[in-house]
Amino acid sequence: MVVNIERLFSTRAKILRASEIRELLKITQVPGMISFAGGLPNPDAFPVEVIHDCIEDIFKEDIKNALQYGTTEGLTQLRGVLAERMKKKHINCELHDILITSGAQQALFLVGLCFLDPGDTYLTNVPAYLGAVQAFGALEANCESIPMNDEGIDIDSLRRNLERLRRTGIYPKFLYTVPTFQNPSGETMSLSHRKELIEIASKYDFLIVEDDPYSDLIFEGKSLPAIKSFDTKGRVIYMSTFSKILAPGLRLGWIISPREILEKLILAKQATDLCTNVFSQYIAYKYVNGGYLDKQVEKISKMYKRKRDLMLKEIKNNFPKGVKWTIPKGGMFIWITLPQSINTSILFRKALNKKVAYVVGDAFFPEGGNYNSMRLNFSYSDDEVIKEGIRRLAEVIKEELKTTYKKEPFLAEGV
Amino acid sequence: MVVNIERLFSTRAKILRASEIRELLKITQVPGMISFAGGLPNPDAFPVEVIHDCIEDIFKEDIKNALQYGTTEGLTQLRGVLAERMKKKHINCELHDILITSGAQQALFLVGLCFLDPGDTYLTNVPAYLGAVQAFGALEANCESIPMNDEGIDIDSLRRNLERLRRTGIYPKFLYTVPTFQNPSGETMSLSHRKELIEIASKYDFLIVEDDPYSDLIFEGKSLPAIKSFDTKGRVIYMSTFSKILAPGLRLGWIISPREILEKLILAKQATDLCTNVFSQYIAYKYVNGGYLDKQVEKISKMYKRKRDLMLKEIKNNFPKGVKWTIPKGGMFIWITLPQSINTSILFRKALNKKVAYVVGDAFFPEGGNYNSMRLNFSYSDDEVIKEGIRRLAEVIKEELKTTYKKEPFLAEGV
Repeated sequence: MVVNIERLFSTRAKILRASEIRELLKITQVPGMISFAGGLPNPDAFPVEVIHDCIEDIFKEDIKNALQYGTTEGLTQLRGVLAERMKKKHINCELHDILITSGAQQALFLVGLCFLDPGDTYLTNVPAYLGAVQAFGALEANCESIPMNDEGIDIDSLRRNLERLRRTGIYPKFLYTVPTFQNPSGETMSLSHRKELIEIASKYDFLIVEDDPYSDLIFEGKSLPAIKSFDTKGRVIYMSTFSKILAPGLRLGWIISPREILEKLILAKQATDLCTNVFSQYIAYKYVNGGYLDKQVEKISKMYKRKRDLMLKEIKNNFPKGVKWTIPKGGMFIWITLPQSINTSILFRKALNKKVAYVVGDAFFPEGGNYNSMRLNFSYSDDEVIKEGIRRLAEVIKEELKTTYKKEPFLAEGV
Repeated sequence: MVVNIERLFSTRAKILRASEIRELLKITQVPGMISFAGGLPNPDAFPVEVIHDCIEDIFKEDIKNALQYGTTEGLTQLRGVLAERMKKKHINCELHDILITSGAQQALFLVGLCFLDPGDTYLTNVPAYLGAVQAFGALEANCESIPMNDEGIDIDSLRRNLERLRRTGIYPKFLYTVPTFQNPSGETMSLSHRKELIEIASKYDFLIVEDDPYSDLIFEGKSLPAIKSFDTKGRVIYMSTFSKILAPGLRLGWIISPREILEKLILAKQATDLCTNVFSQYIAYKYVNGGYLDKQVEKISKMYKRKRDLMLKEIKNNFPKGVKWTIPKGGMFIWITLPQSINTSILFRKALNKKVAYVVGDAFFPEGGNYNSMRLNFSYSDDEVIKEGIRRLAEVIKEELKTTYKKEPFLAEGV
């Protein structure tokens, strides 16, 4: 009998669709393409020699353990040094509060597994990180979007939406947010809003999922305490990653959460992939324990600040009037808002023809409604490539403005 | 407000319970404990120097790529050498038919994600691999158990059960099986049953999930073609792992499946953890491409054969009359059936007191019904430890027989 595969697929498999992130990673491989699309760290910043030294150490001391199965929770030593390091974010935790994951993407997925039944609702401020939307979406959850403002989230809108949801009997399970140097906007949530979120979560009885991959990559100003640091009631699940401060190819992230939640996350991880790559965990342990991390973070931050400054300067000098952009104080992304007559989805093909790529802003709005924005990554490209890429992009935008400026604007933005 | 976490957990989180595998990995760490419980490869067999050489190569040639994000499908070069190697299993495939996973456990979970809605049914021959039962169970699926016989699966029972299910409107999504040197029984499915399974799957319109971690660890006889090799209609999803032929700490497995299924598995993996550890993938690629695998497989098989022979000899010389065991022709496990008066769950505590551990057989029966069996692993322990462990276990069994032999036997086995 011929296979009727559609009958056999699960509902979630049926709704799984090829996403932008994936196609974007492919674009970066076309020869001559300048890609500001991916969220890749700069490979020149990888601490290659230090990693080599760490590996030599492993071969001398721990190799058989590093090649064997490990516990689902993760390497005890690594969890220990991470617990210590979390004090920098004002997070008070022990190693037993930490679960090591196969990258922060797995952390997101595990949270989804443990809290989202099909049809459940979660909140996120938008534009939102694509990987989170994808993980929660794969679990058939509904997203309620809360607009961002220059304090990171529109608190009034959040309250209004929570009241509206409550009236229709919908109780969101959690609010997902990247409070510091957000992907994709580059924006940072204010201190007062961090504290207020906890109060609102308590009032409306939902959790906060705090995704913190970028806070170490700080260019200026004072670093803010994590939302988790204000969590006295066990409402915040915090996650971070080694992808931006060591190397993404090692696929290492971690979760800090209240114990009763962590126990479920551990069981979910066990079903998912048994344990995280043990060899990589030893590398990360040697790396943090050897005191290399602070120096590395300083080096990357300096490099990325230079690249941010360069990209901002080129944008300012080349982009036409009417274009707006964020000035991130850290992280890897700038958010561009074009004049209302331009649709960045339509512009995308034209940009590719000129061999420059970005991520269409609408991709970061799970409920749609944005059309004239884009995300640019400044961490990955060489300096000369940044200059040439922004020049190309400016050209594409200017040409588009010429052909569109007499037309009616599109419908107003949702945000 | 105090968190009411039970309200927030998903249904699947609520049913997640601590499993045996996990507790077992912990037992092995108690000092003085002899554990035949874990499914661990022998660390003395890890090709430490070869891995070191492979890593040196990576640092010379590929280090920046090896530390960067990779594609979700996996490293092209690795998929290429695997496609070539699969010819040994009589599987005809290209690299585009292969997805690299974070261990075979992830392969199982991804298959579950793509095919099992809550309440869906899958089939498995029992005793069944615990990790699969755990992965599918976490997705709220129902298991239908088919007994094994000395040809690997009771085909008549399978047909009868399929008819029974059909009458009640239940159409299983797939049959899960480890056809070669099965975990936990050590049994191998006959050639004729491999072919017949494909016919039955076609007639009743379900898929076959063929889990093949052990077939390279062959001690005697001829290796049988994979079920996948008879798959002309796209009904078989094949998976295997580097955990037993290289090192489990590197967390590398792979799936071979029809393209339209693979596309969904790739999307599911992307939501789950974005991509598999890239550094590990380079190690495995260098390892296979360098021609080390065949030699390593020969070395491990020889070592494990010696350990199997030793354990069988010690069992024969020490275990009391009435105990039965399988004689696996490969793999890592022996299945022991004790006299009906003994309950291995009750015996387990007594065995721990004597500092010897096994896995209670009932754990491998998702629907329960077995009580007097156990799984022993012979790959992990040193030879002297095997001798001492079997001696201890024999003592525990003999003592238990003394106290139970006048009692009524327990209910007859389900299988």
